[in-house]
Amino acid sequence: MTRGGSAVARFDAVDLIRAKRDGRVLADDEIRWLVDAYVSGSVPDEQVAALLMAVYLQGMSPREVASLTAAMVASGEVMDLSHLSRPSVDKHSTGGVGDKVSLVLAPLVASFGAAVPQLSGRGLGHTGGTLDKLEAIPGWRSTLSAAEVLAQLESVGCVICAAGATLAPADRKLYALRDITATVESVPLIASSIISKKVAEGTSCLVLDVKVGSGAFMAQRDQAAELARAMVELGKSAGMKVAALLTPMDVPLGRAVGNAVEVIEAVETLQGGGPADLVEVTVALAEVMLELAGLAGDPRRALRDGSALASWKAMVRAQGGDPDAPLPVAAAIEPVLAERAGFLGRLEARAVGVAAWRLGAGRARKEDPVSASAGVRCLVKPGEPVDKGQPLLELHSDEPSRFERARQVLKDAIEVIDDAPDAPPAAAVIERIG
Amino acid sequence: MTRGGSAVARFDAVDLIRAKRDGRVLADDEIRWLVDAYVSGSVPDEQVAALLMAVYLQGMSPREVASLTAAMVASGEVMDLSHLSRPSVDKHSTGGVGDKVSLVLAPLVASFGAAVPQLSGRGLGHTGGTLDKLEAIPGWRSTLSAAEVLAQLESVGCVICAAGATLAPADRKLYALRDITATVESVPLIASSIISKKVAEGTSCLVLDVKVGSGAFMAQRDQAAELARAMVELGKSAGMKVAALLTPMDVPLGRAVGNAVEVIEAVETLQGGGPADLVEVTVALAEVMLELAGLAGDPRRALRDGSALASWKAMVRAQGGDPDAPLPVAAAIEPVLAERAGFLGRLEARAVGVAAWRLGAGRARKEDPVSASAGVRCLVKPGEPVDKGQPLLELHSDEPSRFERARQVLKDAIEVIDDAPDAPPAAAVIERIG
Repeated sequence: MTRGGSAVARFDAVDLIRAKRDGRVLADDEIRWLVDAYVSGSVPDEQVAALLMAVYLQGMSPREVASLTAAMVASGEVMDLSHLSRPSVDKHSTGGVGDKVSLVLAPLVASFGAAVPQLSGRGLGHTGGTLDKLEAIPGWRSTLSAAEVLAQLESVGCVICAAGATLAPADRKLYALRDITATVESVPLIASSIISKKVAEGTSCLVLDVKVGSGAFMAQRDQAAELARAMVELGKSAGMKVAALLTPMDVPLGRAVGNAVEVIEAVETLQGGGPADLVEVTVALAEVMLELAGLAGDPRRALRDGSALASWKAMVRAQGGDPDAPLPVAAAIEPVLAERAGFLGRLEARAVGVAAWRLGAGRARKEDPVSASAGVRCLVKPGEPVDKGQPLLELHSDEPSRFERARQVLKDAIEVIDDAPDAPPAAAVIERIG
Repeated sequence: MTRGGSAVARFDAVDLIRAKRDGRVLADDEIRWLVDAYVSGSVPDEQVAALLMAVYLQGMSPREVASLTAAMVASGEVMDLSHLSRPSVDKHSTGGVGDKVSLVLAPLVASFGAAVPQLSGRGLGHTGGTLDKLEAIPGWRSTLSAAEVLAQLESVGCVICAAGATLAPADRKLYALRDITATVESVPLIASSIISKKVAEGTSCLVLDVKVGSGAFMAQRDQAAELARAMVELGKSAGMKVAALLTPMDVPLGRAVGNAVEVIEAVETLQGGGPADLVEVTVALAEVMLELAGLAGDPRRALRDGSALASWKAMVRAQGGDPDAPLPVAAAIEPVLAERAGFLGRLEARAVGVAAWRLGAGRARKEDPVSASAGVRCLVKPGEPVDKGQPLLELHSDEPSRFERARQVLKDAIEVIDDAPDAPPAAAVIERIG
C-alpha cells in the first residue's frame, strides 16, 4: 500500500465556498487542499456542509469531479493488485431491494480466473448491505487485513469484505456529512464517492449496476443514465476499464429480501436454480466483467456445473464461514394474504425493503445491529395468478411486535388486478453505457 | 422583558434542508422549529450551514423572511420601551468607512425629545464599530443593564451600548455561522438579522442608512435598493415605522477613520463644525427620524446651538465617560505624500478602511483588542487641489511596524489627476425608500 502525499498550497475555506457558491470552477489544488484540510480537521464540518450544498446546487465540471475523486483517493491508502496472477474486476451496484447479486457474481466471475475484490459497505435505510447478508453465515467474518485480501484474491479469486477505514477516509467523512445535510443526491458527489473507493481498492476493471425505478436511488432512467455516464467517464479518467448497465428496480430482485433469506436464494442460484430475474441480471453483469477483464467463458454454464458454487464455498471458508451450516431462521413467520383473486399487479420494491427493515433486517443508524433471520419472502411476483386468501408474502422476524409496522408499509404497495398484465416481463438490462 | 415561548411542532432537519434546497417555501412553524432547535443545540451547525447555503442560492419569500425574523426575536428577550415618555426611534447603518454618524445622530435626535436606543455591535473587517469608537473615551462603558438603558433613555434620551446577549441570540449564533460559510451577502439573511435586533430592542421607528459604493457592503445601487426595500417591508410587517436612505460610500465619510480620531470629528460636528458630507448625511437621517417619531425641529440649528452637544455630554457622562477628557493620541504619525501636483481624483473608502484596520483600529476576529488611537486622517478629499509632496493622509499607530502594511493597501487606492473633476460632489442622499 502507498500513502498519498499532502498538499502544500494553502487557501481560505471561505473563499473557496464563495467561489463554488457563485458557480466558479475550483482548481485541482484548491480541491486537494479542501479535502486534506477537512480530513485533518482544520476545516470544520459546517464549512464543508455549506460547500456541499453549493456543489449540489451549482454542480461540478468533469475536471472538478476527477480532482475530488483523486483527492479522496489520496486521503488514504491504495491497494496494489498489480502483482496478482489474475486480472482484477469488480462490480458496484447503486443499491436495490433484494439485490444479492454480489453474492452470486463474485464467485461466478472468479471461477473464470478473475480476481474480484469486492470491498463493501453496510446497509442503511431500505436497501440491504452485502456484509449484513454474509454475516448470517455462522463464523463468516467481514474484516480482513490487506494481506489477507491479497492472499485470498490469489488463491480463491474473490473476496467480499469490509472496506477498511484506511481506504478513501475523506469519502467516509464526507458521506456521513452528506447524509445529514440533504446533499446525498448529487451526481458529482455520488460519482466521486463510488469511484474513489474503487480506485483505492485497486481494481483494474469495473462494472456498474445502476438501478432504475421506484425502489432505486434513481427513479428516472435519464437520471440513472446521467449518473452512469458520469461514473464511466470518471472511472476511465482514473485509468480503469469501466462499463455500466442500467437495470430495473421497481419490484424486488428475486423473491427474498433480508439477510439469511437472501443468502439462501443466492446459494440456490449458485446451484443452478434461483429466480429468473436474479439469474438474468447476474449473467449480464458477469458477461461484461469477463469482457473487460479479457476472460472468456459461459456464466450460465458455470452456474449449472458447480464451478461458481465451488468458488463460493472456498470464499466463505477462507473468511471463517461454514458454507454448509444451517442459517438462522426467524422465530416467527406470518403471511400476508391476498384479499381477492386475480393477478398480482404491483409489488413495490421500496415498500418491501422498508418492511424487511422494520422486521429487523436493516438499520436506521450505522451503529444499530441487524437481525440475520428477519426479512420478507415474496411468494408471488407481479404477473402471477393469485387465489383469494393465498399467501403473497411471508414476513420473518424474531420480534412479533414488528409485524404490524411491516404490514402498515406494505398495505398500499401490493395490488391484485383482474387480468394478467399485457406487458412482457421487464428486461434484465435496460441499457449499457460505456 | 418578556421571554418567547418554545415551539411544540417537531420536524426533521434533513427534510427542511431538502425542501429549501429544492426551492420550496418553508412554513412558519418549520422555520420557528429550526431556529429554536438550532439555538438549543439539537440541530448542529453543519445542518444549518447547508440550509444557509440553500437559502443563499434559492432565496426566501417575504413571508419566510418575516417568519425567520419573528423566530429570531422570539429566541430571546424583547425590550419594552412603551412606558417611556419619549417616542422611540433608532437608526441602523449597513456600515461604511469613517461612518461616525451614530455618535452625532443619537444625541442630535434625542435633543428633540426622542428616545434613541442605539444598541450596537463591534467592528469586524474594514468597517469600524461604534462601540470601539466610543471606548476611546476614558471611563466610557458599553455594557449596561436593561434597567440602565431604560433609565438613560428617559433621562438623557439616547444610549449607545452593546446589544445584550439576551436579545435575538439566534441571530448572534446564525451570524457567526454565516461569517465562516460565505452566506453573509444574502438579502433575506441580512434583512432578518438587522430587523430582528431592532424589533428585540423595542424601537417603534427605524431609519436605515443603506450605504452604496465600493467601500460599502453593497457596491451596486440596485442591490442596495433591493436590501432597503426588503428591510422596510420586513420592519413594517413587524409593526415598526420604517424608512431607508441610500447614501454614498465610495470615499470615506468625513476625514477621520479610526476610533479616537472619529470621536474627535463627531464632537467637532456636534459643536457646529465638522466635514460637510458628515453634516449632510446626519441631518438627512435626523429629519427622517424626527418625521417618523412625530417630532418637529431643525437639526442644523441643534448642531449649531449646543443642544445636540449637551445631549452628547449627558450621554457620555451617564455611561461613565468624561466628555471633556483628552483622547488617546497615537505614538507615531506618518504622512502619505502626493507624488505629483494636481487634484485628488480618487480616495477609495475600502482601502482607507483596511489601512486603518491594519494600523490597529479594527480587528480580524471578535476577540481581538483594538487600538483607540490608531487610524487614518484624510487631509485631502477628492476634488481638492494638491501640491507635489503635500501630505494627503496621516497614518496613526502605536506600532510603527504597521505603517508599511497600511501603505501597501493604499498604494493603488489614491490617484492624483491633472484637472479638477467635472462631476459635482456626490449628493448626501441617493434615494429614499419607504
